[in-house]
Amino acid sequence: MELPSEVLQTAVDQLSTLPGVGKRSALRFALHLLRCTDGEVNALADSVRALKTDLCQCRVCHNLSDLPVCPICSSSKRLRDTVCVVENVQDVMAIEATQQYRGLYHVLGGVISPIDGVGVHDIEIDSLVDRVKNADPDAVNEVILALPTTMEGDTTNYYINKQLSPTGVKVTTLARGVAVGDSLEYADRITLGRSIVGRVPFDA
Amino acid sequence: MELPSEVLQTAVDQLSTLPGVGKRSALRFALHLLRCTDGEVNALADSVRALKTDLCQCRVCHNLSDLPVCPICSSSKRLRDTVCVVENVQDVMAIEATQQYRGLYHVLGGVISPIDGVGVHDIEIDSLVDRVKNADPDAVNEVILALPTTMEGDTTNYYINKQLSPTGVKVTTLARGVAVGDSLEYADRITLGRSIVGRVPFDA
Repeated sequence: MELPSEVLQTAVDQLSTLPGVGKRSALRFALHLLRCTDGEVNALADSVRALKTDLCQCRVCHNLSDLPVCPICSSSKRLRDTVCVVENVQDVMAIEATQQYRGLYHVLGGVISPIDGVGVHDIEIDSLVDRVKNADPDAVNEVILALPTTMEGDTTNYYINKQLSPTGVKVTTLARGVAVGDSLEYADRITLGRSIVGRVPFDA
Repeated sequence: MELPSEVLQTAVDQLSTLPGVGKRSALRFALHLLRCTDGEVNALADSVRALKTDLCQCRVCHNLSDLPVCPICSSSKRLRDTVCVVENVQDVMAIEATQQYRGLYHVLGGVISPIDGVGVHDIEIDSLVDRVKNADPDAVNEVILALPTTMEGDTTNYYINKQLSPTGVKVTTLARGVAVGDSLEYADRITLGRSIVGRVPFDA
């Protein structure tokens, strides 16, 4: 589609770099922004720019944060002896949304994936091991591995477990099984198999 | 969803003001932008800001333009005696994409809609009438009404036709009929009816 203006074309090209946004949606965004006030458009532009200038990683757990140490790591209400290891920031949000976890996190920023050129030193595994080793007086008792159930996730689980075994810390992983509300008929074979093998005492 | 950072929250709130973008898509955009370089993020922010600062309306046809007079109005290759009246900028792009029209445009910026508070002086009808009246030496021979087939579009067509009738200019409207490639079975009744009433000589 031929656009009547270079400025509009540039904006459409830029907006269509966003994930899942094609040229048509980008044009819709641009024409919407044209109808907004200068203040609204500047607020959007500033907020996008601030992502790169004002946002940092928590130096303890590597979650996104406005401060050098994130609110979860600096909270006195969280259990400091449990660390949940996740792949990325979205996973922290997903677990927080359950309101079932009171411990701390460690965001790896990826999983080991030789095919994508991600090795053990490209993600935050060394800092996790250091954190568990040097955790006195906040001794870490348990590391929960909450990585994806892919080959890369399993490899990362295996490597982390091996690195942590000298420290004697308890390493656990998320329960896998049939989802709440799912019918057995539609559960996939591997999940159903694991939920039988890993059956738990009936809790009335 | 609780976000770990104020800066991220602001960006998500701002991005979710875009049409059709919810909080989840906005978060996806923000996390994508975090992985971009500073240069890429600044380019996006600048292009959005430029929409408000560098873009103007063509003073002849009211299409979006980088210059006071748009490339279509200033082109020597366009037929200056035909003006196609459309509701908005997207309609110009749609007609241009057909490559079937060599005349000029007039963008109304809306249609008459008393229920939305849009009266005859809120859209560019007066400037259209002036343009046709004062078009010497580029006399306008024909005005093509290409407005939507809604009650508002029909009202606007009627009003424009009435305003233009003293000038003696030829006023035409788009052909309505069964779409190319459509089967009659699935054409709506009104369209099919109009295509029978408005049948044209067979052109082998």
